[in-house]
Amino acid sequence: MEKITSTSNNKIKYIVRLREEKKFQAEEQLFFIEGLHMVKEAIKRNIIITIFLEERMLNKVENIAKFECILISDNVSNKISSTKTSQGIFATCKLEEQEINCDKNILLLDQIQDPGNMGTLIRSAASFDFQTVIASNNSVSFYNPKVLRSTQGNLFSISLVNNDLLKVISELKEKGYLIIGTVLNEESKSLKQVKFIEKQKYGIIIGNEAKGISLELHDLIDINLNIEMSNEVESLNAAIAGSIIMYNIKK
Amino acid sequence: MEKITSTSNNKIKYIVRLREEKKFQAEEQLFFIEGLHMVKEAIKRNIIITIFLEERMLNKVENIAKFECILISDNVSNKISSTKTSQGIFATCKLEEQEINCDKNILLLDQIQDPGNMGTLIRSAASFDFQTVIASNNSVSFYNPKVLRSTQGNLFSISLVNNDLLKVISELKEKGYLIIGTVLNEESKSLKQVKFIEKQKYGIIIGNEAKGISLELHDLIDINLNIEMSNEVESLNAAIAGSIIMYNIKK
Repeated sequence: MEKITSTSNNKIKYIVRLREEKKFQAEEQLFFIEGLHMVKEAIKRNIIITIFLEERMLNKVENIAKFECILISDNVSNKISSTKTSQGIFATCKLEEQEINCDKNILLLDQIQDPGNMGTLIRSAASFDFQTVIASNNSVSFYNPKVLRSTQGNLFSISLVNNDLLKVISELKEKGYLIIGTVLNEESKSLKQVKFIEKQKYGIIIGNEAKGISLELHDLIDINLNIEMSNEVESLNAAIAGSIIMYNIKK
Repeated sequence: MEKITSTSNNKIKYIVRLREEKKFQAEEQLFFIEGLHMVKEAIKRNIIITIFLEERMLNKVENIAKFECILISDNVSNKISSTKTSQGIFATCKLEEQEINCDKNILLLDQIQDPGNMGTLIRSAASFDFQTVIASNNSVSFYNPKVLRSTQGNLFSISLVNNDLLKVISELKEKGYLIIGTVLNEESKSLKQVKFIEKQKYGIIIGNEAKGISLELHDLIDINLNIEMSNEVESLNAAIAGSIIMYNIKK
């Protein structure tokens, strides 16, 4: 089994780029994961390309011999880990084209920048039976290490798609989706007063942490919801707002 | 006006300790904030001790001459900032003893470790009219820089208290509070099926991100709530679970 002990090895440089650069992930059609839980989930989904691991982790994965594995030394493990204490196991995975599930509610993320918010929104989407998350092209990468960590491994069960929201939302409306936003205006409705229709499919837009939903999308919104809250507070965290709305729509 | 240009100045060392160490904050009865929005909020609350700022920020605060100010150079500003790009203004603030507001619902945090979760829970508590947040002594500090950032300045309007939860919850129960938890057991009730009583006061316990609510607190819980979700997902993020419950309890 190959062993890498130098952090300046080309494969290691490649991995670090893959971990950090969204564009590079798209070009290579690969992403990089870390931690035993994530690697096991990726094995279940059959998307593993190469496992990188410290020797101490060899007996932690069943049938490890079935996979392309590369051993790494401590210093390399620390270099490629995005956390203070490396878990000692990593993998590159196939980034497959994912399909929009048009039978279920859909979460639409407009320029979400904070990786913790993105990861938490994906985890909540999976929890509340939203099978697809579509993020605008200028959102943080689904495969940013902090996004992956915040999902707690709940990203493999749902489709993650990057696309132009103006285009996608127009298409969803043609397919009968009602689009929900959180723009405050005269027509916005209190969340507790809205009755969600059982067989209706919804698309929920969550806007950028500072700027909210892009102006160009406002006209596409069918219902703007207002989460009732104290006047003293300006706004909720984006992941909280999105999760409260998804929970309330879930049957 | 005094100006500090060396990062090894004793006042700067003191500030960095204050920023990082919960125990030191308690001993000194001080905490450290950064950013113009936070400093302005702290001025409103009359808790500022000393403002540290770069010269470019001098005209950003009204009546700056009324405060004890120390000028700092760029390198010092970067040293004391906990973000990549320093906002150039900081302050030490009085950490006053804060009182539990027994007229309102209360959020109880049991060993919350992630500063993003803690800050977001404080922000949601303020949003949903919970006037007091009580955290177990082994939770992350309320005044950790990442907690402060995640509150988005919404920490000054509510009481933040560290105490032993076993003791505090027993006292709250004597004062008529109903205690809500999220322990999964045979008696747990679906959140959507629970009717909250209008004049009842509630205390909600949110448990540690990995371990949940401490065993020693289980017997004190009156109602365990279960947030309905997909079987495929193990759990929600702690800040999401807490915020959904607080939103549902709010009248």
